[in-house]
Amino acid sequence: MTLQDDPGRTEDGHPVPAVMLANDVPLYEDELVDDLQRNHYQIIQKKKGFKFGMDAVLLSGFAKVNDGERAIDLGTGTGIIPILLSAKTEGKHFTGLEIQEDICEMAQRSVRLNGIGERVEILRGDIKEASKQFGAASFEVVTSNPPYMNDSHGLKNPNLRKAISRHEVLCTLDDVCREAAKLLVPGGRFYMVHRPHRIAEIITALKQYRLEPKRMKFVHPFSDRDANMVLIEAVRGGNPMVKLEAPIIVYKSQGVYTDEIYEIYGY
Amino acid sequence: MTLQDDPGRTEDGHPVPAVMLANDVPLYEDELVDDLQRNHYQIIQKKKGFKFGMDAVLLSGFAKVNDGERAIDLGTGTGIIPILLSAKTEGKHFTGLEIQEDICEMAQRSVRLNGIGERVEILRGDIKEASKQFGAASFEVVTSNPPYMNDSHGLKNPNLRKAISRHEVLCTLDDVCREAAKLLVPGGRFYMVHRPHRIAEIITALKQYRLEPKRMKFVHPFSDRDANMVLIEAVRGGNPMVKLEAPIIVYKSQGVYTDEIYEIYGY
Repeated sequence: MTLQDDPGRTEDGHPVPAVMLANDVPLYEDELVDDLQRNHYQIIQKKKGFKFGMDAVLLSGFAKVNDGERAIDLGTGTGIIPILLSAKTEGKHFTGLEIQEDICEMAQRSVRLNGIGERVEILRGDIKEASKQFGAASFEVVTSNPPYMNDSHGLKNPNLRKAISRHEVLCTLDDVCREAAKLLVPGGRFYMVHRPHRIAEIITALKQYRLEPKRMKFVHPFSDRDANMVLIEAVRGGNPMVKLEAPIIVYKSQGVYTDEIYEIYGY
Repeated sequence: MTLQDDPGRTEDGHPVPAVMLANDVPLYEDELVDDLQRNHYQIIQKKKGFKFGMDAVLLSGFAKVNDGERAIDLGTGTGIIPILLSAKTEGKHFTGLEIQEDICEMAQRSVRLNGIGERVEILRGDIKEASKQFGAASFEVVTSNPPYMNDSHGLKNPNLRKAISRHEVLCTLDDVCREAAKLLVPGGRFYMVHRPHRIAEIITALKQYRLEPKRMKFVHPFSDRDANMVLIEAVRGGNPMVKLEAPIIVYKSQGVYTDEIYEIYGY
């Protein structure tokens, strides 16, 4: 590994890597590497502003990918969901779709870093066009941790990269549900994490595309507090019958995670 | 009080009361009186087959009726919800609507027994026709603990009285939501307890009648078990924004209620 004290640009305009990681993967000055506590996998993130959240980790614990199945993650960001699912499940292949060029490239380096390029592929593309890019009915599983905030709530983040991942700047809840429905084989499963305050809209959008909610699980920061995330499994063409699972409680006291959170995180 | 050892029929065909309670209220052989642990109120129930459940009590704890508001309970059964709400809130008037003649008459006796006839009235009528019976936009609050089971799930109860209260024999989820929406003033609140496995249908039905879900609370028998009830507040013409409240856990260990349940029950 080579540590650059004074990062700059190479002759062809690329930033000079701060460090060379395993498998000749460069790590840049504004990035760091986190251990995923699964299969010794690691993930590259931005030091500031673009990191995966607990929502993606919880979705990876909630989603089921069976032996031989193909999964795609819509708006994959760091690639956390396909990388974790490749570690946790027997799925055959995992695709991560990301629209932002630099974030996509960073996720591709995480895949190389872990040497899992045969099962995990990160591709650049637009969620709104995903079924054109990959073809209809081409996955058994779709996952997504989409932008949460619709335009009527809150100010847009002035940092565009964050705004794209947090607000529905580039794609709406409706876009995600429509493309998930098209990408799935009949009976295929869509897993999404979202905000509970939009649960009524979410269910309406899912049902509009014949994605029938089958499992739901709410996440509460403390046992006596409102939920701040919801995990949903919807089945393409399923029958209406929801299993409302035991809630996930994140903290048992201030700053102390519950056993369930440690388990999901793989410690 | 007069205890009849050998109940039979009076000359005009009515059953002979087993006991005479306060306020000259008769209690029949197939009935019993329960203490509600609120304002010393009591309620008459059938010994077998027709009793209020925890769902009605939890709905009474979840619903809010403000000073001066008028509330109606659709399918009131024993009258438990209007009687409890009259004890717990500052609401001006509470109507209970019940289609079954003998159950309606039993609920009317509970009202007389507690001497609360000025604020609580039990009337016979059909939920499907409620907005005709009472007129549109005539209540600030509608509550309902409607039949849970649609015809595709389970066998109908062979006992017709139970079947009417448990299955959608006489009214469907759609009927309840439609009539609630008509009965409410704009901005009025509909409180319903139902089964989580139907949550997607419930939200679709509410939104169809512009009843916007605003608060939801799931009830789990144990902290690690699937929910078996959901409490919902929907506002006529509200904006889409749901508060997903902390869950209610019923038992902390086998047979031992949590403190929250004792609190709701008023012990």
